[in-house]
Amino acid sequence: MVKSPLLRRPAPLASSPIVGSPGLGASAARIGSSAIRDLLALAARPDVISLAGGLPDPGGFPVPAVTDAVNDLLATDPAAALQYGPTEGIAELRALVAERLGARTHAGRSTTADQVLITSGSQQALDLVARTLLDPGDVAVVTDPAYVGALQALRASGATLAPIPSDRHGLRVDLLADALAAGLRPRLVHVVSSFDNPTGATLDGRRRVALAELAEEHGFWIVDDDPYAELRWRGAAPTPLRHLTDRCLSLGSTSKLLCPGLRVGWVAAPAAVAPSLAILKQATDLHTSTLSQQLALRLLADGQALDAHVDALTHGYRQRADALVAAFERHAPGALEVRAPEGGMFLWAQLAPHVRPGTTADALLPEAIAAGVAFVPGSAFAASPDGGHRRRLRLSFSTADPATLEEAARRLATVLRP
Amino acid sequence: MVKSPLLRRPAPLASSPIVGSPGLGASAARIGSSAIRDLLALAARPDVISLAGGLPDPGGFPVPAVTDAVNDLLATDPAAALQYGPTEGIAELRALVAERLGARTHAGRSTTADQVLITSGSQQALDLVARTLLDPGDVAVVTDPAYVGALQALRASGATLAPIPSDRHGLRVDLLADALAAGLRPRLVHVVSSFDNPTGATLDGRRRVALAELAEEHGFWIVDDDPYAELRWRGAAPTPLRHLTDRCLSLGSTSKLLCPGLRVGWVAAPAAVAPSLAILKQATDLHTSTLSQQLALRLLADGQALDAHVDALTHGYRQRADALVAAFERHAPGALEVRAPEGGMFLWAQLAPHVRPGTTADALLPEAIAAGVAFVPGSAFAASPDGGHRRRLRLSFSTADPATLEEAARRLATVLRP
Repeated sequence: MVKSPLLRRPAPLASSPIVGSPGLGASAARIGSSAIRDLLALAARPDVISLAGGLPDPGGFPVPAVTDAVNDLLATDPAAALQYGPTEGIAELRALVAERLGARTHAGRSTTADQVLITSGSQQALDLVARTLLDPGDVAVVTDPAYVGALQALRASGATLAPIPSDRHGLRVDLLADALAAGLRPRLVHVVSSFDNPTGATLDGRRRVALAELAEEHGFWIVDDDPYAELRWRGAAPTPLRHLTDRCLSLGSTSKLLCPGLRVGWVAAPAAVAPSLAILKQATDLHTSTLSQQLALRLLADGQALDAHVDALTHGYRQRADALVAAFERHAPGALEVRAPEGGMFLWAQLAPHVRPGTTADALLPEAIAAGVAFVPGSAFAASPDGGHRRRLRLSFSTADPATLEEAARRLATVLRP
Repeated sequence: MVKSPLLRRPAPLASSPIVGSPGLGASAARIGSSAIRDLLALAARPDVISLAGGLPDPGGFPVPAVTDAVNDLLATDPAAALQYGPTEGIAELRALVAERLGARTHAGRSTTADQVLITSGSQQALDLVARTLLDPGDVAVVTDPAYVGALQALRASGATLAPIPSDRHGLRVDLLADALAAGLRPRLVHVVSSFDNPTGATLDGRRRVALAELAEEHGFWIVDDDPYAELRWRGAAPTPLRHLTDRCLSLGSTSKLLCPGLRVGWVAAPAAVAPSLAILKQATDLHTSTLSQQLALRLLADGQALDAHVDALTHGYRQRADALVAAFERHAPGALEVRAPEGGMFLWAQLAPHVRPGTTADALLPEAIAAGVAFVPGSAFAASPDGGHRRRLRLSFSTADPATLEEAARRLATVLRP
């Protein structure tokens, strides 16, 4: 009579490896591979320099602005920060997000406040989008490698994942077109279109146009997970996907621009989808913290100050990225194939063929930790059940200063010697 | 070739009526019945006294304590409030919740910090529990009437709902036993065990024991949605369900004790379930706002101050509940069958048989709004597809002062005259 106490559903999630965004404290317990999990737990030791985390630089958090905003808010309208609020988000914040999303283009498509749903970080937007658009067995295309949080959210919806390779220009849209021609019928295609996690790649302009055309031809949704776009310090930004087609849901976040602890993100969705997302959001958590939303509103409202803040932040990240790339060239010339990124928070390094031939990055990780430096092996981001990316390392440069990055490169070089 | 743009999943959610907790601004757009939705939108007019909302009293928000806590936090450890955090929640907050949950009993069962997952309000705990424990087609028992947010979360998981009537002592556990004997095989049973929304009823001690025994005999989980338990001003609290069986998941929240805008809740789950909830939580939103968690931690940490705050809050609610009951007796003696509640935020009034015979509460609502007072008709909380509770009114007394409640009763009395 007693039913099995075994739980449903966790199986597909438990097999997921590592979420890029949260720190080791957050993600270590959730990494599917217990070997990697155990190793990265060691990376929390103070004598290990971690390039594994993927967190934004806490030195870039706008603490004085948050302090001023919260005091002003609690002094003038505490109920607006502490009472329940509308499921869709605070109206002024939705309008502000719509305006900022629209401002990044000269194309005809605009985003209205009605299309914006405020979410608890863009991770929740992924979850809501997956649950709204996908039924178990539906096909979702992901890049390979992929952001692990997206794999988790898509798997939790019961979708079947169809990985399509990406390269340094993002998703191989030509291979997607081939798969579509061969009969693949995805309900959605997920991309991190700018400064991808883990690859750092930005989907180039021609591929964006081709992807938008395929979406309209085949009737799938593009889920553009786009939290890093504003962290650009070099090169020109391609047209946002949302301005190329109405079949695009655009996900964003304050986590990389301001600070992640607020958990304020958003999804801008076509009018046909937005109301369904809000209905599910209500069942999921009623609404995102009103305190967090009010703070985000105040911090985003002064566009000039925000632009200056983002400029300073990207300037710092640029220095760090360049420092790390240069340090590898000094300490291990030719050992790692890396490209100096144009923005974002990650290097996606490839072990050169002559470096430790036959050895995977997974196998190097314990040696690296013993040498006092940690990274995430590329296999953690494999979207295919067959794995892959075994000679890749995701290296985050966002939280360490240039001198520390120099030392990290020196340490990593000691295990890269052939 | 183009797939249908119709979305999946929203249908069962869209049929849900009204979430009790958020205010009209939040819930109006999500009410399934457009007639009720349109009427309650009118209730937002300043000339209408709304007893429909179900929000806690903003006058009871601990604004000075929040202000002190946030300034201390941002001055001493801003990264702890603004950086990513662990998915399960901040360790100190989990420990504090475990301690407070354990303190309310003399039974042998204790709650450990490992069993506590911090969630974005207890609504998210409901969603995570539903998605973790239920597969589409699984049976979930709910009370009839039920908290609408629970119906939404359970329906979103694809569960089949089996409504069992409740009365003024809570779930009719005898009827549940009959249904189990007749072959019902629920995976979980959801109750709001103290000061239920909408009925205000508390599950009595004997029924709790019987329910716990049935859970162990039949192997279902009890999901005890318990945000109101501490708002008791009369009578003795029965033993919490979590102390009667290990097959209980206990959901709580700071929303009714401190303020809802933080969106900090929790679920204390058996060790067999807790890790699966955390895995899903990570896919859902990574973690709950660290700023909100740190504030909740500081506000909950001083047990004496918290108890004094809750005492003051419940004293105010008691005055309001008693004032509303007395006002009905003055202005419409015998017209509404109501019981003076022992705690919580709601009256669940029944139209006396001689009052407007043949008329439903739904039909009275437009008249009431015209007279300047709003309520939620009982039908909004029906868990059965056949509806029901058509002569019931849910009346919230939490946000209006006694004089305003007196006027609300006077206005409602004008439409209750036979």
